[in-house]
Amino acid sequence: MEGRKAVGLAARDTTGFLSPYTFNLRKTGPEDVALKVLYCGIDHTDLHQMRNEIHGTAYPLVPGHEVVGEVVELGSEVKKFKVGDKVGVGCMIWSCGKCSDCKSNSEQYCSQKILTVNGKYEDGTPTHGGFSSAMVVHQRQALPCHTAALFKPNCGDCRFVVRIPENLAPEQAAPLLCAGVTAYSPLKQFIGINKVVRGGILGLGGVGHLGVIIAKALGHHVTVISSSERKREEALKHLGADAFLVSSNAADMEAAADSFDYILDTVPVLHPLRSYLSLLKVDGKLVIVAAVPQPLQFDAVELILGKKNISGSFIGSMEETQEILEFWAEKGLTTMIETVKADYVNKAFERMERNDVRYRFVLDLAASNLH
Amino acid sequence: MEGRKAVGLAARDTTGFLSPYTFNLRKTGPEDVALKVLYCGIDHTDLHQMRNEIHGTAYPLVPGHEVVGEVVELGSEVKKFKVGDKVGVGCMIWSCGKCSDCKSNSEQYCSQKILTVNGKYEDGTPTHGGFSSAMVVHQRQALPCHTAALFKPNCGDCRFVVRIPENLAPEQAAPLLCAGVTAYSPLKQFIGINKVVRGGILGLGGVGHLGVIIAKALGHHVTVISSSERKREEALKHLGADAFLVSSNAADMEAAADSFDYILDTVPVLHPLRSYLSLLKVDGKLVIVAAVPQPLQFDAVELILGKKNISGSFIGSMEETQEILEFWAEKGLTTMIETVKADYVNKAFERMERNDVRYRFVLDLAASNLH
Repeated sequence: MEGRKAVGLAARDTTGFLSPYTFNLRKTGPEDVALKVLYCGIDHTDLHQMRNEIHGTAYPLVPGHEVVGEVVELGSEVKKFKVGDKVGVGCMIWSCGKCSDCKSNSEQYCSQKILTVNGKYEDGTPTHGGFSSAMVVHQRQALPCHTAALFKPNCGDCRFVVRIPENLAPEQAAPLLCAGVTAYSPLKQFIGINKVVRGGILGLGGVGHLGVIIAKALGHHVTVISSSERKREEALKHLGADAFLVSSNAADMEAAADSFDYILDTVPVLHPLRSYLSLLKVDGKLVIVAAVPQPLQFDAVELILGKKNISGSFIGSMEETQEILEFWAEKGLTTMIETVKADYVNKAFERMERNDVRYRFVLDLAASNLH
Repeated sequence: MEGRKAVGLAARDTTGFLSPYTFNLRKTGPEDVALKVLYCGIDHTDLHQMRNEIHGTAYPLVPGHEVVGEVVELGSEVKKFKVGDKVGVGCMIWSCGKCSDCKSNSEQYCSQKILTVNGKYEDGTPTHGGFSSAMVVHQRQALPCHTAALFKPNCGDCRFVVRIPENLAPEQAAPLLCAGVTAYSPLKQFIGINKVVRGGILGLGGVGHLGVIIAKALGHHVTVISSSERKREEALKHLGADAFLVSSNAADMEAAADSFDYILDTVPVLHPLRSYLSLLKVDGKLVIVAAVPQPLQFDAVELILGKKNISGSFIGSMEETQEILEFWAEKGLTTMIETVKADYVNKAFERMERNDVRYRFVLDLAASNLH
């Protein structure tokens, strides 16, 4: 038996141009949640996938992995939601549930995970993302929930459908499901440190701007590090950063040497790590969250003499996705977004590509004519 | 008033050739320990310093920073030693004592530290290392001692003179004072992990061989990673490693992918990190302890998708220096050394340079004619 029909926006070839595409959703299974999509964030990864710039795109491709929707149907085994609930779907829609990464609530590192976009189910069916009228997503009961301890008792809503808190506007929630949790997951390690943590945010795009907001909400002293003066005012006035550092200003960089506990590196193009590593204190951490096509370089002596640390971090777990939503609602934070309708989507990608957005486009699918 | 005279072996120019050199030691001050040198380890850094290959050597240079001696005189304020005690001096002989690194027992990262060799005291006097008949070294009372908790109550012997445990032969102790603590300091983070830790040791020289012994003594499953088959037997039979992996064997490397909790990287020449990073599990750590003159490269995507981690580590603290000595004595471990006299020192450096030593030369100064 067929499930419901959905209308999405799909790329058909490497031009990446999006146009309407009608496809069938599977029937809502016992552990499935069927949702009407309300909003979906627009991310650089969408563009790379649309143009087949990473991982081999299968066309037609329906992008979108920051999906907020409303539950319209529930499988018989799904107890944690009711019809009408606002829910979120992020970058993943399945993982094996058995490996050590899945068992430790780090399913984003599961080697068998299925991504929301350009993934394939076991039977070969392609996954379709949130630039669509509807989705059907498998829930899986989470492991013992740590979000509960951090924020709320018994939320228990992780994997692979998360709950949007009632006091969080759904369009506000969308960018948290990928960009937000990407910044939150590595910053979380500094929760509970009993001193003022000094952080640097390198790059002020979708992930970077949320990084500033999260770090400030965690009580950090936050410096935005940028290649030019251009974003000084927005960093300090609009985003509330404590300081702004231009990486080409040698005197200011020298003055800031050895002063950061961490740098969140969100820059997706080749950049020299050396000058940024010099900003870290002993035992300081540079966390890379943005893929860079070319190899990055560092100086072993600098790492050794300063006990410095370079690590990578991939999105965040479903549990952390739930956490950042609760965190956002609890702290009353505001995602800086520009909401657009489907007929603007190709234009939105054009503007995103030249960094002409403060700081994230969110597609309003419920208000769009998708045909 | 002048202190005692010492006879050392000094390099006079960039040939690095060592010859006898007589110099004055300062008078033993209230917080000083004067010692007769018994043994001193021979390290690659000595050679670099002798030839002015790092940090600008001031000649004449008396090398040696793995010094074991016997106390011959004590300053009035020194309570923790008595004449005749066996003591050790490592890479540092002073630090500021006031910065956050000093206060957290990480004085090896103090920006004002004075190195044992090629350092300068505040008054401009050059420091001289352990290739000498005698030394005078400042003690400084350590902060609350963690070595005590780990191994022995109230040892309290750190900074900058450590105690050689009674049941540890002094020549055995020498290589622990730099090479040993360099391997121990980063491996220490795995103490107390309640599962079998799987470690890789990259490079089998002075630091690497001690890394294998320490990791085995900590209960790790240890793989020696080497560029050739040549060291298979010694790694497995003589050092007790559990496995041997040749980095040029693509099939074996593939089979070992995603299996190591850490790799201790002791290779002091340019090497591609990519193949080694692939061996790490999610959240696995590559710890670099050997300076490499050229920049090292890595792939951001590999770091991100595997949550992998590259860090540096510099020697170890004085507290950790005391710890590794206690650890060695307690576990009854054996340093693999070749003991030589002063008249062989230039030959020993020649052989060390072509890796013709298993695994560390130790200079027997007490038995040598230094004139």
